[in-house]
Amino acid sequence: MKNIKLILSYDGTNYHGWQAQTDLPTPGQALKEAILRLVGEEVQIIAASRIDAGGHALCQTVNFKTSSSLPVSSYPKALNAHLPQDIVVYAAEEVGSEFHARFSAKRRVYEYVILNLEYPSPIYRNYCHWIPSPLNLRKMRRAMRILVGLHDFTSFASLGGEKRDPDRTIFGTSLYGHMDFIRIRIEGDSFLPGMVRTIVATLIEVGLGRLEPVRVRQILEAKDRALAPSPAPACGLYLVRVEY
Amino acid sequence: MKNIKLILSYDGTNYHGWQAQTDLPTPGQALKEAILRLVGEEVQIIAASRIDAGGHALCQTVNFKTSSSLPVSSYPKALNAHLPQDIVVYAAEEVGSEFHARFSAKRRVYEYVILNLEYPSPIYRNYCHWIPSPLNLRKMRRAMRILVGLHDFTSFASLGGEKRDPDRTIFGTSLYGHMDFIRIRIEGDSFLPGMVRTIVATLIEVGLGRLEPVRVRQILEAKDRALAPSPAPACGLYLVRVEY
Repeated sequence: MKNIKLILSYDGTNYHGWQAQTDLPTPGQALKEAILRLVGEEVQIIAASRIDAGGHALCQTVNFKTSSSLPVSSYPKALNAHLPQDIVVYAAEEVGSEFHARFSAKRRVYEYVILNLEYPSPIYRNYCHWIPSPLNLRKMRRAMRILVGLHDFTSFASLGGEKRDPDRTIFGTSLYGHMDFIRIRIEGDSFLPGMVRTIVATLIEVGLGRLEPVRVRQILEAKDRALAPSPAPACGLYLVRVEY
Repeated sequence: MKNIKLILSYDGTNYHGWQAQTDLPTPGQALKEAILRLVGEEVQIIAASRIDAGGHALCQTVNFKTSSSLPVSSYPKALNAHLPQDIVVYAAEEVGSEFHARFSAKRRVYEYVILNLEYPSPIYRNYCHWIPSPLNLRKMRRAMRILVGLHDFTSFASLGGEKRDPDRTIFGTSLYGHMDFIRIRIEGDSFLPGMVRTIVATLIEVGLGRLEPVRVRQILEAKDRALAPSPAPACGLYLVRVEY
């Protein structure tokens, strides 16, 4: 059995998260079907990240095991021929049998894109979150720094009653504005469900002046999901890199 | 009667050109219906540019006459409430009765976006033209300069038998690459149908090394549409500015 690692990008607009529990279309299911058509085997796909419904991936990383003798270098173009245009595999390599796209990942990098402009953009409407009011980036940066480090992120997770270890490490954050876009980048070991978007929603409250940066520390320390706002919409969310 | 000028942006992906001859959905028709719902009048909309089906607008400029007493400043937000999300009006002003969005325009600026990368982008698939082979930008720039000035652009127009004055002036062109994107900007007084996309297709042939820059002058001077390639796909086309 070969263990194949793939890197793929997709537009999440028309999908219900990477791998939904239901029969709704997902990139995970589309990839599984494309692999079945290519190698004639139903494989189990392991992904670095469950990406929220509507969120996008610049580099989702997955692995699967196959007995196919197809040369690994031919996977990207051969799979793309079977995939819809909103999913593109752009790298493939054979990895050791112990490689696990989810558990071997050391660092995940997410970016969240805000359009900060009086009017929304028709062209970027599915690719950013539009906020018409001015945002105080200096205050947002101050709030972000509070979250760096190892913390219990219960206050920022959508666990829905699920029991999970809520400790996560954020290695670093950055925020930069270019033209009318603001990009928030968060790098961590791994993320709880809804965590990136709830952090972003909290930072937006800070940017709008509705929440003082110091309050973010109180929310974090309270370990109470009720204190943070609802997650920011998924259309602004991008998985930009996974490191192993 | 007031003469109202609007500036709007739209995503052309789901439309059949600004104003099609048929019953297919167009931004022109959608705008006309939104104005009807807002002011209760069926108006005649004059647009600066017929944009090809699938092409996008960052600043389509239109005007229409109305007897409505609605304050002009309230038009953008009021119309946006009646428009689909892929069309956004972002400016309105009252102009003199002689203002005509098409005939008063002095300069139109188009941009064409190419993604020059081994693999296509799922996220930008409707917003650029993907070319996997490397392009020689130096040669493309040399070819572009040949087109600047007043010329008979018959070789680059999709007139389909239509009789029109084929003389147009290109004021300037530029081409710049950033990341994996190449942007071609063409500024002119006005453009014949299909002209920007046929020029772009010709420049791409030059960039791919299939056509020498000097050959572009021969194509221009021959005034023979059969000598230039088919237009580049509309998904890469943007109307970026209209000047009066």
